[in-house]
Amino acid sequence: MMASDIHHRTDDFRKLYRQILSDLQEVMGTSYDVLALTCSGTGAMEASVTNFFSPGDSVIVCSAGKFGERWVELAKVYGLSATVLEAPYGDTVSPDRLRQALSTNTRGVFVQASESSTGAAHDVKTMGELVQKTDAILVVDAITGLGTMPLDIQAWDLDVVIGGSQKAFMSPPGLAFLSISPKAWAHSAAATLPRYYFDLKKEKKNSANGESSWTPAVPVLLALAEALKYIKSVGMTNLVENAQLLAQATRAAATALGLELFAPNSPGSALTAIKAPPGMDSGLIVKDFRRRFGSIVNNGQGSMKGQIIRLAHLGYFDFPDLFAVIAQLEIILAAHGFPVTFGTGVAAAQHFYAHASLAKEVTHV
Amino acid sequence: MMASDIHHRTDDFRKLYRQILSDLQEVMGTSYDVLALTCSGTGAMEASVTNFFSPGDSVIVCSAGKFGERWVELAKVYGLSATVLEAPYGDTVSPDRLRQALSTNTRGVFVQASESSTGAAHDVKTMGELVQKTDAILVVDAITGLGTMPLDIQAWDLDVVIGGSQKAFMSPPGLAFLSISPKAWAHSAAATLPRYYFDLKKEKKNSANGESSWTPAVPVLLALAEALKYIKSVGMTNLVENAQLLAQATRAAATALGLELFAPNSPGSALTAIKAPPGMDSGLIVKDFRRRFGSIVNNGQGSMKGQIIRLAHLGYFDFPDLFAVIAQLEIILAAHGFPVTFGTGVAAAQHFYAHASLAKEVTHV
Repeated sequence: MMASDIHHRTDDFRKLYRQILSDLQEVMGTSYDVLALTCSGTGAMEASVTNFFSPGDSVIVCSAGKFGERWVELAKVYGLSATVLEAPYGDTVSPDRLRQALSTNTRGVFVQASESSTGAAHDVKTMGELVQKTDAILVVDAITGLGTMPLDIQAWDLDVVIGGSQKAFMSPPGLAFLSISPKAWAHSAAATLPRYYFDLKKEKKNSANGESSWTPAVPVLLALAEALKYIKSVGMTNLVENAQLLAQATRAAATALGLELFAPNSPGSALTAIKAPPGMDSGLIVKDFRRRFGSIVNNGQGSMKGQIIRLAHLGYFDFPDLFAVIAQLEIILAAHGFPVTFGTGVAAAQHFYAHASLAKEVTHV
Repeated sequence: MMASDIHHRTDDFRKLYRQILSDLQEVMGTSYDVLALTCSGTGAMEASVTNFFSPGDSVIVCSAGKFGERWVELAKVYGLSATVLEAPYGDTVSPDRLRQALSTNTRGVFVQASESSTGAAHDVKTMGELVQKTDAILVVDAITGLGTMPLDIQAWDLDVVIGGSQKAFMSPPGLAFLSISPKAWAHSAAATLPRYYFDLKKEKKNSANGESSWTPAVPVLLALAEALKYIKSVGMTNLVENAQLLAQATRAAATALGLELFAPNSPGSALTAIKAPPGMDSGLIVKDFRRRFGSIVNNGQGSMKGQIIRLAHLGYFDFPDLFAVIAQLEIILAAHGFPVTFGTGVAAAQHFYAHASLAKEVTHV
């Protein structure tokens, strides 16, 4: 089933690959170069360090969770001089803090558009405005941000934007991709950090010929090509709006059930993190979803483990799925002794849906 | 078709992943640690440089083609002090040359078991004997060597052996893996080169828990799991023997057709490189295979482009496929004016097969 008969050094492959890169540009809404790599998103994060910076470069990391910490680790491994602006889990780093930290020496700023460990979203638009005025480049991990929040790559001056096949792009994992601004390419000319497998200049040159530098994960490319067709038919704007509506409905349901949101101040739409009721380990909820229903929701990561559950809204996911998830959650909470009137959360999501679809119909007239 | 419902942080995944790593150990015939990475084989080659060495380390590269040159490039990017033992394309680096080059300072030796650009195979057994007596580790790119030639990893003291999902392992590309000896792990303790995505110590720790460090190419893992079941049922020894028989039969066919072999002195069994007839561009042959029959054979790479064709024997490939390939080759050569008596090459391969299978039946009595 998984076997592919496309060999990666054929015209069929080159046609497929050019189409994928062009479709990625289209759905990301940018004419910047978009390159693909066979790796997880973390590989593309590493590429964004090694291709644009040199040892000792001053950079700023905006860290608001586990993936922010990954930038900190990468900066350390590659000898960058990093100023870390840290926000507590569930919160975000404000553009004001970035404004104060930026100096004439700053060569780069790293941030998550959507911090997947907490569900919080950074104001990358304002950050782009700030960084654009300096010599630094803004590197945005948008692995769960793309397709779940508006990201106007060029208008907002986002120099490097990283995505992955397995999130909003509805495909299996195995591929990451990034858009690269001319300013970032100018940085790359001076960057001396070592790189080989993740060599973006080499990748750009080969992509221009419809080829990847190294043997790519062909089955994931084939799946991604189909997913991109679907995303183009739906429209990226509608996809983002749908994720936003789902996230709002989830927050309404959680609130109706008396549950506390984990990132109430800057909630993203890739996922919603909800605190487990006091005294209940969120791992029990995750296990029950799996055991009772074969459903997957995620536990907190790192220090958040046992404290929160994370409900995803991205990818091939819509309201019927959400209604079902909330209904399951109600049953699980009740089974663990949390007072629940069945249907309360579902009804809140339904009401939200009914109002939103009504509003949308009016808009469409 | 490509969608997978295995999430990579579940017990189902952990069970699958443990089974794959254990099956890889079994078919590679080693109790050394075997780790998997989501990348092409080149990523695992890079990991073998950054995890075991420090800047300035003295290493020896045995280079006999395009993939040998990749070791040279990697050594350069990461600041290793490399002595390059070069052999002309089609030839190999002899163990004697390695013996003379090894010094007490040597920290590592890099080689291809099978050089895929030419089809030639190195004598890694003798190289292992030599390197074992020193402080160096022997790093073997066996991406097309595994499953096509005997490789007794522990008895031959091969410290790091690299494989890829898409070659003898009959799966789509997207995963690489490596076996690592205790001596190589001891090297890694002192290695200071930077690494993050390809951090083998981290990967070892996570693998022990049935997890990959980063989101893996799940569809390729699922395909690999099935392929490993098949390989175990056939037996790695039989798989290797089959590739060897196919390679011998191919050489017999080429010779019968009056074609010249490209690597006559140390032919491997992953593929056979055959020179195009004088005055004929091998690219024409490759194109005709594609255009007339939808079949894929490979052109030479780099400076060999236009001079040779490469017929693969590895993976899910057997005598019927070979007979068909030779018959197609005969037609294509004739169409380009090369004198061919149809069936000559096929008959040579058939005779070889008949003798080999007879011999095998006798052996089995």
